[in-house]
Amino acid sequence: MRSSFNHFDAQGRVHMVDVSGKPNTVREAVAQAIVEMAAETRQRIDDGQLGKGDVLSVAELAGVMGAKQTSTLIPLCHPIALTHVSIRCTWLTPMEAARASLSIESTARTTGPTGVEMEALTACSTAALTVYDMCKAVDRAMVIQQIRLLKKTGGKSGTFRVEDL
Amino acid sequence: MRSSFNHFDAQGRVHMVDVSGKPNTVREAVAQAIVEMAAETRQRIDDGQLGKGDVLSVAELAGVMGAKQTSTLIPLCHPIALTHVSIRCTWLTPMEAARASLSIESTARTTGPTGVEMEALTACSTAALTVYDMCKAVDRAMVIQQIRLLKKTGGKSGTFRVEDL
Amino acid sequence: MRSSFNHFDAQGRVHMVDVSGKPNTVREAVAQAIVEMAAETRQRIDDGQLGKGDVLSVAELAGVMGAKQTSTLIPLCHPIALTHVSIRCTWLTPMEAARASLSIESTARTTGPTGVEMEALTACSTAALTVYDMCKAVDRAMVIQQIRLLKKTGGKSGTFRVEDL
Amino acid sequence: MRSSFNHFDAQGRVHMVDVSGKPNTVREAVAQAIVEMAAETRQRIDDGQLGKGDVLSVAELAGVMGAKQTSTLIPLCHPIALTHVSIRCTWLTPMEAARASLSIESTARTTGPTGVEMEALTACSTAALTVYDMCKAVDRAMVIQQIRLLKKTGGKSGTFRVEDL
Amino acid sequence: MRSSFNHFDAQGRVHMVDVSGKPNTVREAVAQAIVEMAAETRQRIDDGQLGKGDVLSVAELAGVMGAKQTSTLIPLCHPIALTHVSIRCTWLTPMEAARASLSIESTARTTGPTGVEMEALTACSTAALTVYDMCKAVDRAMVIQQIRLLKKTGGKSGTFRVEDL
Amino acid sequence: MRSSFNHFDAQGRVHMVDVSGKPNTVREAVAQAIVEMAAETRQRIDDGQLGKGDVLSVAELAGVMGAKQTSTLIPLCHPIALTHVSIRCTWLTPMEAARASLSIESTARTTGPTGVEMEALTACSTAALTVYDMCKAVDRAMVIQQIRLLKKTGGKSGTFRVEDL
Repeated sequence: MRSSFNHFDAQGRVHMVDVSGKPNTVREAVAQAIVEMAAETRQRIDDGQLGKGDVLSVAELAGVMGAKQTSTLIPLCHPIALTHVSIRCTWLTPMEAARASLSIESTARTTGPTGVEMEALTACSTAALTVYDMCKAVDRAMVIQQIRLLKKTGGKSGTFRVEDL
Repeated sequence: MRSSFNHFDAQGRVHMVDVSGKPNTVREAVAQAIVEMAAETRQRIDDGQLGKGDVLSVAELAGVMGAKQTSTLIPLCHPIALTHVSIRCTWLTPMEAARASLSIESTARTTGPTGVEMEALTACSTAALTVYDMCKAVDRAMVIQQIRLLKKTGGKSGTFRVEDL
Repeated sequence: MRSSFNHFDAQGRVHMVDVSGKPNTVREAVAQAIVEMAAETRQRIDDGQLGKGDVLSVAELAGVMGAKQTSTLIPLCHPIALTHVSIRCTWLTPMEAARASLSIESTARTTGPTGVEMEALTACSTAALTVYDMCKAVDRAMVIQQIRLLKKTGGKSGTFRVEDL
Repeated sequence: MRSSFNHFDAQGRVHMVDVSGKPNTVREAVAQAIVEMAAETRQRIDDGQLGKGDVLSVAELAGVMGAKQTSTLIPLCHPIALTHVSIRCTWLTPMEAARASLSIESTARTTGPTGVEMEALTACSTAALTVYDMCKAVDRAMVIQQIRLLKKTGGKSGTFRVEDL
Repeated sequence: MRSSFNHFDAQGRVHMVDVSGKPNTVREAVAQAIVEMAAETRQRIDDGQLGKGDVLSVAELAGVMGAKQTSTLIPLCHPIALTHVSIRCTWLTPMEAARASLSIESTARTTGPTGVEMEALTACSTAALTVYDMCKAVDRAMVIQQIRLLKKTGGKSGTFRVEDL
Repeated sequence: MRSSFNHFDAQGRVHMVDVSGKPNTVREAVAQAIVEMAAETRQRIDDGQLGKGDVLSVAELAGVMGAKQTSTLIPLCHPIALTHVSIRCTWLTPMEAARASLSIESTARTTGPTGVEMEALTACSTAALTVYDMCKAVDRAMVIQQIRLLKKTGGKSGTFRVEDL
């Protein structure tokens, strides 16, 4: 019996899955991460957007750049000619909440033989880690939650969409 | 008023914080990520460990290698001469649970002027993303949860430890 | 009112511009940098070409390799499958001039949905920095001047050419 | 006769200069680049700082990250544990000037056996190229000028300072 | 007379060969490396495959990842969108041989304008170096032999095949 | 029973070996690779050194740069602050031999807690692959032989030297 996972061949050896025969089609993936933090940390981030240092802009840029490193980081990912990456940080909790939740949503696109789910997820996790890095001196207990694929379109396996989006 | 965050200077510009004057001391950080997946996905991962392709070994290696890319990925991280990185994957849920939780715990160490929290966190997130990548063809709804710092020792700010560990 | 720059979306967030719908066409860019140095430094470089160490060959190679790092260095650049890069170093000043000017000209090509201006410019600046690095022990006052795009062909925006070329 | 340049050995072969025996001392370098552009381009950059997309913040971040890639880009540079990098963009020309000049000044520091001139210069050139990239759709004729070392302290060769600073 | 090698232009300057006009076709390359080691080292590797640490799986993964770094490492290689990489380690010598030989064979594929010989060779050499790294504490005298191209198909120059395969 | 290899822990998991407690000492490694080729290929390389394109200079530079990528390529290598790298290409066979052998010898040094064997070996293999790349259009049957450690000094394990050097 061979492995259940297509990243292993019949002998259980890792390989980069062969996509030589697959057509180039437009593919998109949307992913999300959530950073939970103290209300005071959020307050400081909001203050920074008024000109004293914008944490979320740095995180968004790090996310876009992180997407381009996906095939270096994730061992069996194909190198992909990304045609679009964007990141959007939004607060999920009201200003007065005791604990704040920041949503980081990324969109990645390519025209190629394989999908960009990992690029979208890597963008989100890099942006989330960057928020952690920049705020850790004031809030070491931040937690990154719910890194997941929200949507994927294009390719043979068709569209995937998280139900309760 | 200057920024609350030390990654910005008095004018709100990003910079890599100056650690020139800080002494070289031994520093350690422990971090964690949790990957939630379908019971069937866990079953397949367990099967693979019997020789048909070991997802968790690939993820552990990816995590170690990811730690070395931290200063490339996270914009304001210092390049650090890591002296140790390890990753440990363990199941948090019993075999028969309807939904499985995989804990990925990393430890990073250095002897230097600044800490390795981001290295430990990047190791965890890279390993978790690698698990996602390898299993996504069978379980696209996996979610990465709770990437957080568990412990940090060394340096002027002293020891940090998650209370309910 | 949205940003004047296409690297920002309507909310002022950075993104990698979407080129998913653009056709693959042949694109070329030619760029230049000039390194100004003492006459004696030039003399030493010329001497080296006779077999004791060829600064300009090292710089040309560094330029070609630098072009391949463009999308890693420049945050919003697309990863591009370069199909050609060349670098050419030539002296702009006569041998006897009191101050020497070295021209570094690069040509980059691709077949794809977006241009290679940044690849050509990065090739030039990397080559120029390499000249600086190799000669800095004898001439720390070298200056890199006039990094600019000389020509660009292909793509919807058409041909650009510096007038006084 | 051997090469005038210390990056070549007695036979004219390139090498990474041996710094094994040199003591670890604090070293700093300050470098500069100037980006010349149309007055209208400057106006758009200034507008963006009011919240619709801040070109200079992106460039400053790219510069810090670029400094960390120096030893990858410049063939004979030593890998260096940077302890500080900062970038500062300031306008050299009055608002009403027909042609605008943006100064990009970087500072790099390390505690080690060799200097950080190349790191400071690479930071400047990366930041300048990023400004070009973000503004090129509206002003392809921008020129990067005067990339040079302003100051260097630490190390056996002592302090260097551009005279007319 | 110009250089015999197509990586130099008529003046002897290096360049990345222009493949702009070449059609995208399916290309494959197969390469090999052999690692010679003490019988005892082989015994330990075999023992590890029973669950105490699998050297060959680590090497195979390193080989796949190394193939993706080819254009960063080899100065004049084109960046290539690899569509497949696999690595296979097999013992060439019987268990009881006094000296053991491990064959590392890689296959690389792409659909593009240029071949993947260097990707296949880099995969093999990276995997072989990884075996060396993991075993060096017990056998510093291991030798990597016979890194060579076994086969190449696709492209204008047609099929190449080592005769005594 | 635990693994024979120190890159695995007691449970058989990979890790980057802990060198936190080890002293910083000067360490050196010397390695070698041999490239076998047709006599005609050697003739062309020799011709190129007269100014029409110098294959060996490109290979030597690639080797130095490759050494700096070692910890990115070899999964469990520590990032190391190299203080010296050099590469030397010499012919082992007389001009008139039917088949030519090129020796590539590298020396790497650091002051640190761990050795530089892998850096020296990676330098050699990168330089050898570069020779292959540049000559492959005229001699696809070149073979890289005998990549091995010649000497290692410094560190607790003491000096290693190939006997028949």
